[in-house]
Amino acid sequence: MEHSMKPIIAKLVDDKIVISKPKGIGRIHSKSRIGKLVDNKLYLQPLEAVFLLEEEKIKLIDDTREITFEELFKKAADGKNNFETQYLIYRNLRNRGYQPTIIDQQTLSLNKNLVFTFAETDATTAFKLEKLCEDINYKELNNWIGLVDEEGDITYYDISLKEPIGEISNRTTIEVEGVLLNNRVILFDQDKLMQLHRNEFYGKPFKKGLQLSLIEAFYLMKQKLLTIIKPSGEEVDISLFKEFLEKKHPEILFRYPIYENLKKRALIVKTGFKFGTHFRAYTNLPNYTHAEYLIHVIEPTREIDWSEISRGIRMAHAVRKTFLFAFKNKNKIIYLKLSRIRP
Amino acid sequence: MEHSMKPIIAKLVDDKIVISKPKGIGRIHSKSRIGKLVDNKLYLQPLEAVFLLEEEKIKLIDDTREITFEELFKKAADGKNNFETQYLIYRNLRNRGYQPTIIDQQTLSLNKNLVFTFAETDATTAFKLEKLCEDINYKELNNWIGLVDEEGDITYYDISLKEPIGEISNRTTIEVEGVLLNNRVILFDQDKLMQLHRNEFYGKPFKKGLQLSLIEAFYLMKQKLLTIIKPSGEEVDISLFKEFLEKKHPEILFRYPIYENLKKRALIVKTGFKFGTHFRAYTNLPNYTHAEYLIHVIEPTREIDWSEISRGIRMAHAVRKTFLFAFKNKNKIIYLKLSRIRP
Repeated sequence: MEHSMKPIIAKLVDDKIVISKPKGIGRIHSKSRIGKLVDNKLYLQPLEAVFLLEEEKIKLIDDTREITFEELFKKAADGKNNFETQYLIYRNLRNRGYQPTIIDQQTLSLNKNLVFTFAETDATTAFKLEKLCEDINYKELNNWIGLVDEEGDITYYDISLKEPIGEISNRTTIEVEGVLLNNRVILFDQDKLMQLHRNEFYGKPFKKGLQLSLIEAFYLMKQKLLTIIKPSGEEVDISLFKEFLEKKHPEILFRYPIYENLKKRALIVKTGFKFGTHFRAYTNLPNYTHAEYLIHVIEPTREIDWSEISRGIRMAHAVRKTFLFAFKNKNKIIYLKLSRIRP
Repeated sequence: MEHSMKPIIAKLVDDKIVISKPKGIGRIHSKSRIGKLVDNKLYLQPLEAVFLLEEEKIKLIDDTREITFEELFKKAADGKNNFETQYLIYRNLRNRGYQPTIIDQQTLSLNKNLVFTFAETDATTAFKLEKLCEDINYKELNNWIGLVDEEGDITYYDISLKEPIGEISNRTTIEVEGVLLNNRVILFDQDKLMQLHRNEFYGKPFKKGLQLSLIEAFYLMKQKLLTIIKPSGEEVDISLFKEFLEKKHPEILFRYPIYENLKKRALIVKTGFKFGTHFRAYTNLPNYTHAEYLIHVIEPTREIDWSEISRGIRMAHAVRKTFLFAFKNKNKIIYLKLSRIRP
């Protein structure tokens, strides 16, 4: 549609918006794929008509007079929660050269993918996001999320299920003893500790020892490779250690199933603290590669704030890592890969 | 202290660690500023002795035998929650060429500033952080936070009170009408809306209107510059609008006092959504400057997770902005400036 053309006349009849002239139908429907053709008449959805009116491609009249953009916009928005959000994304995609069609109040369809339209303040959960991916994955389509922020700016994310896999499966077999402190476990046996560190990048060495994080310690205890004692010398068995974690570091136990699953997937797992996430994971030893993943563990039914998602993806993007949300769904660990795209 | 020197003998007597020989006192105390001199004897705190033992500067003996690093470490850590954290930071600062002294279990002192030592999992609140700054600000010292993450890596932050000030005080006087949608307010009056946008960068223009964010709309209503109606035409007065926000966007009301305060400080305030924070603020019109601040609004008594702090600062640093925590303390709005430093 060239901008210089004369607007096409559309009529508002009983709440329906109709274009009758073949020339108009050709320009709007055949060329631009807007509207639905029934019995040689083209019916526009309100959102489509608002768009065409804003673009000055149509002129809308009823029996008596011309309907302005403002009037139609109000009418189309009235009572519909998601209208503005979907409209802003629809318009943005059109301006980018796409020809989206409207599936339902939340979903637009492009040729090869779906775009789910959200406003910044819309709540969602990991379960719901997983559902979006499952519905679509078997059709081999892409899933995009179009997100309108408070200010009306739009960000697009690609979302899919992911199975992260690394190359460093469990290879440590030595048994060690460590001292449990408040926030870590210290190993003092110089010979053994360097093996732990070299084989699977456990802990952080210092001059006369190795610090293990509590989650590493818990994992190694479960593998029966580590026994721990208090500074006073008393032994702490695994059930006591679990109690200690429950009391002082419940977040570690919450994240632990994901840690264990990532280890099973032959990844090296370390804290993601510096990146504001829970874990970073390496597919190979850090001598050979940078951490590829940033992993954020979430409660699947908790409402996720979109700014939490935006922040995680933005940070991962800044440091060239892949951002994954991880959560437990029944007995399965699900990873959702989210990345920002510029359609 | 050169590394090749023979270790100095320190004695463990009744839980005190003492160095008696003048030569040892010279090297440990006069040169390295470790220990406290009383009656020509040098008394070491356990943490100091652990450090000197790890560095192999001293040899520790009791009546019968040599005490190993591991033994002393356990003894020093026993029953003290913060020992490991403080030790790791103390050692790190020493290795960086500083000569910290120990004030209390949480605080180290450098020449011109204090270092508060925290572990990643230590809880804090905005009130507590403000208190750290207040105690110290009048002495014109710097405040650092040394933070040990799960893995034993240390990050340093500089923390201070800040009074952000901009150059764009309220200058809009025109009155406008807008349509309230679910997540924004749309203005259709082409003449007026561009003034709002040009004067104080309100909203985001599109072809036939201007979108205001809800917080902008609420502010303009309070200034009596904006009236709003529903798409159906019904007027929404300010108390109704407030009810709507309370019900659908309580987070906006929670953040509003900070928004208003930043406007009073002649800053231009927009959403910080893309940066994962609540606001970004400009000291001048965006034609002239980038947003200088990222502002995160917090509940002053809620426990802050250090990863929240780390994330905010890291993001602000990546985009070269200043990170501020903002909160209400009684009737005052407090801004805490946090930035990462490499001492």
